[in-house]
Amino acid sequence: MERDDRGMPITTPPAADAPPGLKGLVVAETALGDVRGEEGFYHYRQYAAPDLARLCTLEDVWHLLLDGSLPDQARRAEFADQLAPFRHLSPAVLRALPLIAADSDTVATGLRTALSHHASTLGLPPTMDCSADQRRHQALALSAPVPAIVAALHRLRHGLDPVPARTDLPLATDYLWMLTGSEPEPERARAIEQYLILGLDHGFNASTFTARVVTSTGTDLGSALVAALGALIGPLHGGAPSRSLDTLDAIGSPGHARDWVRATVEQGGRIMGFGHAVYRTEDPRCVLLREIALGLGGELPERAVAVEREVEAALEELKPGRGLQANVEWYAAVVMAACGMHRSLFTPTFAASRVIGWCAHALEQAEEGRLIRPSSRYVGAAAPAPIPPR
Amino acid sequence: MERDDRGMPITTPPAADAPPGLKGLVVAETALGDVRGEEGFYHYRQYAAPDLARLCTLEDVWHLLLDGSLPDQARRAEFADQLAPFRHLSPAVLRALPLIAADSDTVATGLRTALSHHASTLGLPPTMDCSADQRRHQALALSAPVPAIVAALHRLRHGLDPVPARTDLPLATDYLWMLTGSEPEPERARAIEQYLILGLDHGFNASTFTARVVTSTGTDLGSALVAALGALIGPLHGGAPSRSLDTLDAIGSPGHARDWVRATVEQGGRIMGFGHAVYRTEDPRCVLLREIALGLGGELPERAVAVEREVEAALEELKPGRGLQANVEWYAAVVMAACGMHRSLFTPTFAASRVIGWCAHALEQAEEGRLIRPSSRYVGAAAPAPIPPR
Repeated sequence: MERDDRGMPITTPPAADAPPGLKGLVVAETALGDVRGEEGFYHYRQYAAPDLARLCTLEDVWHLLLDGSLPDQARRAEFADQLAPFRHLSPAVLRALPLIAADSDTVATGLRTALSHHASTLGLPPTMDCSADQRRHQALALSAPVPAIVAALHRLRHGLDPVPARTDLPLATDYLWMLTGSEPEPERARAIEQYLILGLDHGFNASTFTARVVTSTGTDLGSALVAALGALIGPLHGGAPSRSLDTLDAIGSPGHARDWVRATVEQGGRIMGFGHAVYRTEDPRCVLLREIALGLGGELPERAVAVEREVEAALEELKPGRGLQANVEWYAAVVMAACGMHRSLFTPTFAASRVIGWCAHALEQAEEGRLIRPSSRYVGAAAPAPIPPR
Repeated sequence: MERDDRGMPITTPPAADAPPGLKGLVVAETALGDVRGEEGFYHYRQYAAPDLARLCTLEDVWHLLLDGSLPDQARRAEFADQLAPFRHLSPAVLRALPLIAADSDTVATGLRTALSHHASTLGLPPTMDCSADQRRHQALALSAPVPAIVAALHRLRHGLDPVPARTDLPLATDYLWMLTGSEPEPERARAIEQYLILGLDHGFNASTFTARVVTSTGTDLGSALVAALGALIGPLHGGAPSRSLDTLDAIGSPGHARDWVRATVEQGGRIMGFGHAVYRTEDPRCVLLREIALGLGGELPERAVAVEREVEAALEELKPGRGLQANVEWYAAVVMAACGMHRSLFTPTFAASRVIGWCAHALEQAEEGRLIRPSSRYVGAAAPAPIPPR
């Protein structure tokens, strides 16, 4: 072992350096989809995601991501039958939910606990080192009950009993049913369904990357999903939708937007709901969600559009050339609020969609079977102080 | 937007490619420590970790990682006082543990649920976007009770009541106390303490990297730790110690080792407990743990050493030049078993140590405040089939 003149071993130089935040660095290949930030375009298996949201059901797009194709009628019925038993809460989760709901700080962190508990109580293989069929089974068993868990947590936190899933209803309609105990208006159910389709996958965002890193250790799928959820909750990732509505509230009327943005930026604050790590154009999710929101009618969507214009103009003045535009959170929040959802449900609802994408990525990663293990560079003190006597 | 001759948008070429599994790629700078795989050396803030394990207490090394220095006597007492209240189970966790213990498949996944619940019920800031003091408070509140959670889960699964923490005892002694309800022999307590010190940190392994990726979204520390635990559970990472003891069992006596290894390798199997992603020398943790194991006496450590020699010789014959040597899991398992620990506790005990390292890394990452978001390359079909009519 080589040593330096203080007797410390000499560091082996690392192989290569990654760009800060791994930005732009290709860390994996995927057949699931792509985000083309310069073009304002993203797709699932080469179908433009907004087209899928316009034309398909959530069930069909789930099948596309998980099994590789949009189903024909026979396969559609078969997939619905496969999903149905997993849409219900398990007895173990039903037992634990009242405690989790009563004690958890938020629905989102309660979901993290409940999903971990669910995964731990299924008697599934404790690893992804099993057949592709067993992995697919894990994916259905873990992702399908997420809407039921979210709805039950929400109701229990408001002193209401959980409403059992109705598998005769489409997934999105059933979700609103479980939240409220009454059948939703079709326009609302379809709006939420379209939002859920748009949220299923979006390149190598931090939560999807987390799911793949965790999966690469060979661990169980539940661990990967719980980890991804923890990343999603972060305000720089999926934890923002309710904050963007807070922004809208704080601004109030469009006429106040410019002053508010100027004051916030001058104080070094972030404008939640604006700007994106990847898109340099309008976020394509935003385009469709704005349309959906306006279709729902009411004061909120109109105001959100008017405030959006003012905020963008103010940001262009304050940070010219940065192209800071409304992002998916801005209109995701408006759509969910216009459908009567409580803000505490925004991030968990996003999770109920994205968990399907995480599963597809985890299954793809598991096929690869290689541990993801990068390096770091030590930048601390070069030589130690002697260990002091106790 | 540019389009190809099928009308699909043309992909923007990605910036750069990462090596497979990010191997050797420097993804962050850290002042916490380094692993020098070619030299068989690793350190915490430039103190060789095995030296720390030989000379220091777990509490002192925890302070080193968290606060940057080995404490003097006054600071040592102050740190113990800060830790003490967090070593107990919270009321919310005490309420939930019987259900979690009864229903969870393993102690490790039960710990994942309980830690998530604990984090969700502390009323801590829901993000790491708070002061350094508040982040340090989160770190203590989340990592200090892990031994108590593990011990309670273990006892409840065996029909026994949890044993409350005794903060008059050192951490490692208290852990064995909470597991058994009786004061451990000092040699065993010291052996476990040394194992815990050796496990605190080890470069950018998959769980530490996971903790940093999740932290980079600005999420709460609990999310980062739960995510890291999910990675640790994976058999390619920390989920291996009990399996390496299974290997030792399967081999039985040293005389059977060569045949067993040959048969396993010929069938394409892995020899759990041998080989490491980074070390090309003897794993430095192994050196000390072997010594500790032999110091504990008994049949198991002697046999483990004899089998190790035979397995290494057989692997050198079968895979010459690969330098496949016993890794930390091999002797970690032997030390824990020789101290009377059940196999189901091996990975959770590793977690009780490594969670301290994850916290230190998460706090370092939070200072940086940059989202980790890499890219992927789409390798699926180039053009979509038309969306079929429903």
